Amino acid sequence: MSKLSVSIAGGSGYAGGEALRLLLSHPEVTVKQVSSERNATTRVTRLHPNLRGSTDLSFCKLDELESCDVLLACLPHGEGIARIDAFTKLADRIIDLSADFRLNDPAAYNKWYGKEHSRPDLLREFVYGIPELHREQMREAKWVSSAGCNATASILAMFPVARAGIIESDRTVIEVKVGSSEGGQSVSPASHHPERAGCVRSFMPVGHRHTGEIEQELAFNGSVQVGMSATSIEMVRGVLATCHVALKDDLAEKDIWKVFREAYANEPFLRIVKDRDGLYRLPEPKLVAGTNYCDVGFVRDPHSRRLVIISAIDNLMKGAAGQAVQALNIMCGFDERTGLEFPGLHP
Amino acid sequence: MSKLSVSIAGGSGYAGGEALRLLLSHPEVTVKQVSSERNATTRVTRLHPNLRGSTDLSFCKLDELESCDVLLACLPHGEGIARIDAFTKLADRIIDLSADFRLNDPAAYNKWYGKEHSRPDLLREFVYGIPELHREQMREAKWVSSAGCNATASILAMFPVARAGIIESDRTVIEVKVGSSEGGQSVSPASHHPERAGCVRSFMPVGHRHTGEIEQELAFNGSVQVGMSATSIEMVRGVLATCHVALKDDLAEKDIWKVFREAYANEPFLRIVKDRDGLYRLPEPKLVAGTNYCDVGFVRDPHSRRLVIISAIDNLMKGAAGQAVQALNIMCGFDERTGLEFPGLHP
Amino acid sequence: MSKLSVSIAGGSGYAGGEALRLLLSHPEVTVKQVSSERNATTRVTRLHPNLRGSTDLSFCKLDELESCDVLLACLPHGEGIARIDAFTKLADRIIDLSADFRLNDPAAYNKWYGKEHSRPDLLREFVYGIPELHREQMREAKWVSSAGCNATASILAMFPVARAGIIESDRTVIEVKVGSSEGGQSVSPASHHPERAGCVRSFMPVGHRHTGEIEQELAFNGSVQVGMSATSIEMVRGVLATCHVALKDDLAEKDIWKVFREAYANEPFLRIVKDRDGLYRLPEPKLVAGTNYCDVGFVRDPHSRRLVIISAIDNLMKGAAGQAVQALNIMCGFDERTGLEFPGLHP
Amino acid sequence: MSKLSVSIAGGSGYAGGEALRLLLSHPEVTVKQVSSERNATTRVTRLHPNLRGSTDLSFCKLDELESCDVLLACLPHGEGIARIDAFTKLADRIIDLSADFRLNDPAAYNKWYGKEHSRPDLLREFVYGIPELHREQMREAKWVSSAGCNATASILAMFPVARAGIIESDRTVIEVKVGSSEGGQSVSPASHHPERAGCVRSFMPVGHRHTGEIEQELAFNGSVQVGMSATSIEMVRGVLATCHVALKDDLAEKDIWKVFREAYANEPFLRIVKDRDGLYRLPEPKLVAGTNYCDVGFVRDPHSRRLVIISAIDNLMKGAAGQAVQALNIMCGFDERTGLEFPGLHP
Repeated sequence: MSKLSVSIAGGSGYAGGEALRLLLSHPEVTVKQVSSERNATTRVTRLHPNLRGSTDLSFCKLDELESCDVLLACLPHGEGIARIDAFTKLADRIIDLSADFRLNDPAAYNKWYGKEHSRPDLLREFVYGIPELHREQMREAKWVSSAGCNATASILAMFPVARAGIIESDRTVIEVKVGSSEGGQSVSPASHHPERAGCVRSFMPVGHRHTGEIEQELAFNGSVQVGMSATSIEMVRGVLATCHVALKDDLAEKDIWKVFREAYANEPFLRIVKDRDGLYRLPEPKLVAGTNYCDVGFVRDPHSRRLVIISAIDNLMKGAAGQAVQALNIMCGFDERTGLEFPGLHP
Repeated sequence: MSKLSVSIAGGSGYAGGEALRLLLSHPEVTVKQVSSERNATTRVTRLHPNLRGSTDLSFCKLDELESCDVLLACLPHGEGIARIDAFTKLADRIIDLSADFRLNDPAAYNKWYGKEHSRPDLLREFVYGIPELHREQMREAKWVSSAGCNATASILAMFPVARAGIIESDRTVIEVKVGSSEGGQSVSPASHHPERAGCVRSFMPVGHRHTGEIEQELAFNGSVQVGMSATSIEMVRGVLATCHVALKDDLAEKDIWKVFREAYANEPFLRIVKDRDGLYRLPEPKLVAGTNYCDVGFVRDPHSRRLVIISAIDNLMKGAAGQAVQALNIMCGFDERTGLEFPGLHP
Repeated sequence: MSKLSVSIAGGSGYAGGEALRLLLSHPEVTVKQVSSERNATTRVTRLHPNLRGSTDLSFCKLDELESCDVLLACLPHGEGIARIDAFTKLADRIIDLSADFRLNDPAAYNKWYGKEHSRPDLLREFVYGIPELHREQMREAKWVSSAGCNATASILAMFPVARAGIIESDRTVIEVKVGSSEGGQSVSPASHHPERAGCVRSFMPVGHRHTGEIEQELAFNGSVQVGMSATSIEMVRGVLATCHVALKDDLAEKDIWKVFREAYANEPFLRIVKDRDGLYRLPEPKLVAGTNYCDVGFVRDPHSRRLVIISAIDNLMKGAAGQAVQALNIMCGFDERTGLEFPGLHP
Repeated sequence: MSKLSVSIAGGSGYAGGEALRLLLSHPEVTVKQVSSERNATTRVTRLHPNLRGSTDLSFCKLDELESCDVLLACLPHGEGIARIDAFTKLADRIIDLSADFRLNDPAAYNKWYGKEHSRPDLLREFVYGIPELHREQMREAKWVSSAGCNATASILAMFPVARAGIIESDRTVIEVKVGSSEGGQSVSPASHHPERAGCVRSFMPVGHRHTGEIEQELAFNGSVQVGMSATSIEMVRGVLATCHVALKDDLAEKDIWKVFREAYANEPFLRIVKDRDGLYRLPEPKLVAGTNYCDVGFVRDPHSRRLVIISAIDNLMKGAAGQAVQALNIMCGFDERTGLEFPGLHP
């Protein structure tokens, strides 16, 4: 069987580079083209030096992209919308990693992004890109909108208890601790090493845009309200989401175990991490760096009705390129794990 | 005027070393003795190499401590209780940095420390060591119990709104992000660099002992309940406390400003940090490393009644030795800032 | 064809864990047993939490090891010697990752390890484990002694110029900068995070044992003398070797290029990294973390006859487990790259 | 006595901010003005947030600087030269922290900076700013040129043995490991946190400009040649210089001790650090962060004639602002340690 041809629009950034890394070693895929307006004609290894020896590709211009089987769009937020009609002519299947098509409701887009969506007609055409919630839709989907990194960590932490209807709908507090690669490749005073190193920066204590996605995806039993805060810490890759939820009833730990097992027992990239001893009793971002795993664990607070749910992902993998390749595998009928087998490093 | 003679019981650990650093350059103090059972006769600079060139002192045994004006006890939790009667014979004034005498109520001690307090008769004799809450009592106090590091950050963040009675009493979630020096000088697999480096470890998602101190000190308007979680991050010194509270009323930002200004406008070590731009708009532990400052800021969530209050301290300074020296200054009638003038470094 | 059965003696440490990770996903290999005296009956994922979901193996005792095709011995230095006769009964082929059988000359062992070698009869039976120097011998070898991590980085940097005979034999200075995982899994005050974090520790300014291996392997044109210093820096995995050599003649850069190309043009794991621009112009440990690459680059000093050669490896991969699997592939007739395809991460 | 009025030209950068920190708490000094073209009218605490609560100063324009007793010029390299005549009218005494006036010989400037010096007439008017070498000249000096950070660490490591004439003049290799603050406050792709974090970057393996200063200052016994390489590591503040020198004679360790003691026994900021045990046996940058110390140690290699000399400084302190204040103290007749008493932190 001939391989699937995949191109990457906007492949110079971190998510694009990660997608390229995964696709270059994907046994069912040939990477056809990778675009970058600013780096056209430059070898991709100049920007993605880890791929030295793995590829001779050079960047092309967006306008030079040819037709392919699947297009991965890794453009900055807002730039994909303008190109969407051109993209649909290039490829039958599109996976968009920007934030442009994640929200189903134009009003929600307006609230969280502060402007009107220019193509509200398309919002419901995209499947939201978390396979654990939308696998069946993905199998038939032509267009998938990859989920936000912090949203992915939060939703996968909360999904079992939200679906099970065991938590109060308006008392959830989510704190995400994030690495510097979330900010992308663009230089700024905030990312200058002497300033960013060792920081514990409350860069988004309120108003995080991913709140919109989270509230959309967790509304199994009516609308939910989430208080979200994001803190930058000394880390390059990784997200740890700590979710504080209020249980409606005084559930025992085994009841909660059951809720998580029902949701994740058969998921290839979800591991329930909740050990009694050892150094890694709960999820840790460093253990999932480079992998597509989302580790989820939880602890019951005996002092109150609080349940603390903790999840860890690599923001560039399960939070971006890895989850996009997982979606591609589902859309194209491959084994979902193909190309995503790297187990991660320790120490 | 002759200088005050101060000795340190248990001076080989990080808090003891920090106290020694501060006292060696304190203009009103002479450091008389520093004890360490395991390191007796060793020069203090072997364990506190930053003090090379600042002192020729060697450690003595606890039993060799002579009478002095003030004794700082930096012993491990539990060891101070056994010695307390001996200590009161050595010095009129004692500042105890352990957790032994922080809780006023023996039942609370039992709840959070899991055992009976062996000297409940003394619990009410100690003044809880946060000057911003107990300055007047300290002026007359003979015995002060230094506050826990995470408790100090949390209480100073919450004190203004708790006293003002503007928050719900049972909906507070506190997340503290902490550095590795909180774990002290004892080696363990958990502190082994290849494991601890780069970690985002949910080491105490529930059940943090400092919860007891926090609930005790914030009970201005009846009892309060706090859900506290602690996460270790890549940092050596420092605590960032992020406190999520629910406002009773839909207060405007200026109303909240007023509450914080009333509490802290005249405090020498409290800075309200809440800028509109710049890289350090909210408190950051790295800016207060080595200082006695507690920086506090807040942000109002327009999406709900949530108010996010953020505080930063150096756990060894405002969270231990610095606050102890501040207490000493108050107890002895010195200017409160004496010996605590270091402004911190940037970058 | 049935798979090769491989067991790991001493698999609880970092090199053993890395070997296990590689072998679990090696398509030609089945991992039969993994021993650990202290952790027998414990699941291997307790110590190697990155392997959660990849294996259900538990550790066995050394004495419980059964016969297998290849035995990887990852025991602490000195412990392998005592077991060597037992090991040879278990497996036809042995790869020993300790330092016990690296030096050919008992006198050199005595000099660098400070004691008599207890089995000098075996020293010449082991092939020194760097494939780029000993590939042909490895094809026939039954016993391979894996090279030291810092020795590997140094030898692969120096090998082309040493073999070509273009440098002075007694003026080489090698500085290696190393991560904390080199120290292994054992806890010590030196590895305690508050002490080890941010350190730039000259832990071995002279007397590094790997000097013996380096001088042995580089003696192409008579004996050589190397001045080696090792410095611990803030890093977990990785070695950067900076080798300062004195050129005999005033060679042009293109002549030096030729020397390196001749040595490494066809090597699957050697990349010559020497770019004119970009952020990664010379080798960097972080780009090779988790990979079996050794990146090598060089710069000619116009101010003197000095040539600076720089190499980067992951100490646990090309410096230990990766190179051992590369040797296994050669010994067993597999493609040399099998199981070692991970390209590394950026950023 | 009225205080000395000191202004800072170019005070928005890291060295300027550090000078400001020191001068604000200097008991003999009043800070009059601080200039920054880009930040004029902004409060200095916006750029130097550690000084919140310590000062209400705002930046002025360079042209607004008024006459003062001493002017500290912290302008980028090259910008000071153009302003020098204006500066001499503002203040009798000038301390220039740029590289413009460090080299005495215009030919050396041309060699290392790649262009003609525009004011060669002034080169010999400046005293080179390392007090340990030029204290007597400084007492009478009007103009001092602060030494380069890596040059300071290297010169202070090498000065005793160079002056004593016990080393070969052309076999020295100096490796400096440096933090990111050396690159200053300007943002660049090289300083972008995801790229700079965890790097071990051979950014200047040959051709480091400070080589010129080092060879100038160490030419006690005829000209010397130094091979210098600089590597960026995960650190914000700090320099570790490792100097490999070849001894002319096979000196015993006690002879070398004598050479260092003669040079540094009475120096207030030089500590010989060479312990037999403990975790900090040799100099470490983290112990001197924020201080004006230069720690120096050495180890004799029994394997060859190599002597390894190690020094550690804070590049912004002893390598810039601290050494400038030390020079100011000498020039103005104050105790040399005034305002520089901070002993540093541990851990």
